[in-house]
Amino acid sequence: MKKFDTVVIGGGPAGITAAISARRNYPQKSVALIRREEQVMIPCGIPYIFGTLKTPEQNLAPDAGLKNNAIELIITGVDKIDAEKKSIQTPGGEISWDKLVIATGSRPFVPPIPGKNLKGVFDIKKDSNYLKELKKHIAEAKNIVIVGGGFIGVEFADEIVKTAGKSVSIIEMMPNCLALSYDAEFCIEAEKKLRAAGVNVYTSTRVESFGGVEKIEFVKISSGESVPADLVILGIGAHAEVELARAAGIAIGSSGGIIVDRRMETSVKNIFSCGDCTEKYSFFGGRLSQLKLASIATQEARIAGANLFETRLQGAGTLGVWSTMISSMAFATAGLTESAAVSMGYRVITTSVEGINRHPGVMPGGHNTKLKLVFEASSSILLGGQACGGESVGDMVNVVAALIQKNMRADEITLFQMGTHPALSASPIAYHLVNAAEMACQKFLSKG
Amino acid sequence: MKKFDTVVIGGGPAGITAAISARRNYPQKSVALIRREEQVMIPCGIPYIFGTLKTPEQNLAPDAGLKNNAIELIITGVDKIDAEKKSIQTPGGEISWDKLVIATGSRPFVPPIPGKNLKGVFDIKKDSNYLKELKKHIAEAKNIVIVGGGFIGVEFADEIVKTAGKSVSIIEMMPNCLALSYDAEFCIEAEKKLRAAGVNVYTSTRVESFGGVEKIEFVKISSGESVPADLVILGIGAHAEVELARAAGIAIGSSGGIIVDRRMETSVKNIFSCGDCTEKYSFFGGRLSQLKLASIATQEARIAGANLFETRLQGAGTLGVWSTMISSMAFATAGLTESAAVSMGYRVITTSVEGINRHPGVMPGGHNTKLKLVFEASSSILLGGQACGGESVGDMVNVVAALIQKNMRADEITLFQMGTHPALSASPIAYHLVNAAEMACQKFLSKG
Repeated sequence: MKKFDTVVIGGGPAGITAAISARRNYPQKSVALIRREEQVMIPCGIPYIFGTLKTPEQNLAPDAGLKNNAIELIITGVDKIDAEKKSIQTPGGEISWDKLVIATGSRPFVPPIPGKNLKGVFDIKKDSNYLKELKKHIAEAKNIVIVGGGFIGVEFADEIVKTAGKSVSIIEMMPNCLALSYDAEFCIEAEKKLRAAGVNVYTSTRVESFGGVEKIEFVKISSGESVPADLVILGIGAHAEVELARAAGIAIGSSGGIIVDRRMETSVKNIFSCGDCTEKYSFFGGRLSQLKLASIATQEARIAGANLFETRLQGAGTLGVWSTMISSMAFATAGLTESAAVSMGYRVITTSVEGINRHPGVMPGGHNTKLKLVFEASSSILLGGQACGGESVGDMVNVVAALIQKNMRADEITLFQMGTHPALSASPIAYHLVNAAEMACQKFLSKG
Repeated sequence: MKKFDTVVIGGGPAGITAAISARRNYPQKSVALIRREEQVMIPCGIPYIFGTLKTPEQNLAPDAGLKNNAIELIITGVDKIDAEKKSIQTPGGEISWDKLVIATGSRPFVPPIPGKNLKGVFDIKKDSNYLKELKKHIAEAKNIVIVGGGFIGVEFADEIVKTAGKSVSIIEMMPNCLALSYDAEFCIEAEKKLRAAGVNVYTSTRVESFGGVEKIEFVKISSGESVPADLVILGIGAHAEVELARAAGIAIGSSGGIIVDRRMETSVKNIFSCGDCTEKYSFFGGRLSQLKLASIATQEARIAGANLFETRLQGAGTLGVWSTMISSMAFATAGLTESAAVSMGYRVITTSVEGINRHPGVMPGGHNTKLKLVFEASSSILLGGQACGGESVGDMVNVVAALIQKNMRADEITLFQMGTHPALSASPIAYHLVNAAEMACQKFLSKG
């Protein structure tokens, strides 16, 4: 029987990061990572294998991080976790552990829509052979319908439509694409970009059924219309993959994920969980969160890795920070949108600043860039920020994320000392973040 | 006699921002901005008028911000500030104020080097006619010597060398270019880039004299060598422009700048000062700081503007955050370098992380990117960060700046929730900032 101090199950971002953090925190302890896949897809890179990247092979996560950190990589399925014996059973035999990290991730949610089993209806599995197959089908397809206008659906559409001769449609149930992450003014910007690129965007539209004989031929939508389709991609979200954990007697929460404390330990001592398989609560108010992002997974993994043999770190709840590109316009968001905040009962102050992210504006690489900040109205504490424009918004929103995590008020953010440069940013006079904060102070004062 | 509630003297970033902040904070109060120049150069854009931008006209600061904020623009020199009468005298008559903001900026420092008055020896004035003249001379020159390898010297060299057929040399006194802002490993990277672009870089080298008959012909340096030169540009720094303030009886500090309190008020009640003309103290330890940056100037201006009629904000000292581009490699820095920290008596922990700022690394726009963090060793509080690589380091270092300003420890930064995206950033597993912090935690622990 093999024996390790720490065993991590799962080869995605959570698993890799947990293993590396285990090594860094407890250099004397042996660490093994167990995964099913010979090779691992970078999950966020999957949409790009259909356009920007030529093949799924270009989107493989390197194993160098494991090797460099002396983490033993074991490629096998796992049949069972035995919490009492502190071991796992695999087809190749038993492996014992002192601390276990479950990072089994998620699987695509397939909605109960009639016709979902027709040939040509795909979900998005993080499996390189499956994705190669999907890529082949996409290459042959003429009419492609993407169900779900969240960021996965939007990124797929934006990539696939780059290939000439394809009709690409997005069907989104909510009034806008990306509506969970952006307020309407940003969503509309994103939809404009998608439409300009040639994507047909249906919003406030449900899919009633998938139609066809054996193979998908059309998608019936709530307007009554039939959208022709020879390929459908489901991008509606994911479910926590918790079967191994459940079978081992580990408590599963009402959100469907493995319950953990703030140290990422499960209901069973010495077993930790992180990433998509794990239940999350929000940084704002502490309610359950359904967000699943690689960046959240890695943060949880760092907490899990730090706490394996003694308690070192605790999480503060999920913030939700992410970015995307649509037709070379970048979109990024951190924390609560205005509409999410209002629906949670917050009274808010918002400010928006728009301008070119270079100075003078004629410097190369300049993009008109818009930033919106959302503050709690009685304290002026920052709750969220959204931005779109040049590539710099990806990190601009990371600045916002830092400020949110420190509960900073508008007046404090007015004092923020940033660096600026003609070739890299707006001028310090026009710097979006500080101006938005300064304007929020005035709104706050005029109420006071 | 004209009369305004607030008068700002100076049309640079500090003056513009102070006027706008005055308007935002006290919307009922009248604001006038007085400046000498018909048109204002964007100071940080000046190096770019010699390459990337075609003419000085492309680098003009727009006056729209003044107009949109109902700020009266008066173009005139100022002869005298009368603190008792609360007025200023100008060639066009007296203008009275209730609150005055002095933002008179700085003028280039011209070192007492023999031959400095030879024709062809230029400093860098923020004056569009002067710069047009300089541009003409640069176009005709063959051998150009830049004295000073700080960021102005480096940016000038990098821009000018793009024009074929010119020999461009930098003479820097310190062991490396940019040594006040970066540790040696980054400076060496910058020097490599400069040399690869064709710049001759002399370090640990003093200028002994400028030689020639009437016109500059060569620069004699401390090695004994004579560097041929038909044009010299002095980029050694700037002196606070305080003559108006001094004549008005306002206290001037030992650093040469106007003394202010944390509210940016000078020794004379109702008179505020901000920007390059103002004395600064460091965020770290509170000693005087010689940093002069537009981003610092605008932050001071926002504080001054907020405090004119009641006390609203106070500064925490100058952090020093800035970035630059050298041959399409971006460099950025925030807070203390390792060497600056050590020279101030800090015991430090440092960590460096290197990797591509995309994931997978083959995504377009990827650059190898390096981040170094400097922590105080007994508390693991972040003191500084330096980065070089892709354009994203400009905002990456702004994240670092936010964390420094909140006195964050390595363990807190390990918990930092950032957004990542294949087209915009490193993977969340490899995200530079969090990894550097996590590695610092381990160094901190292993000492503990």
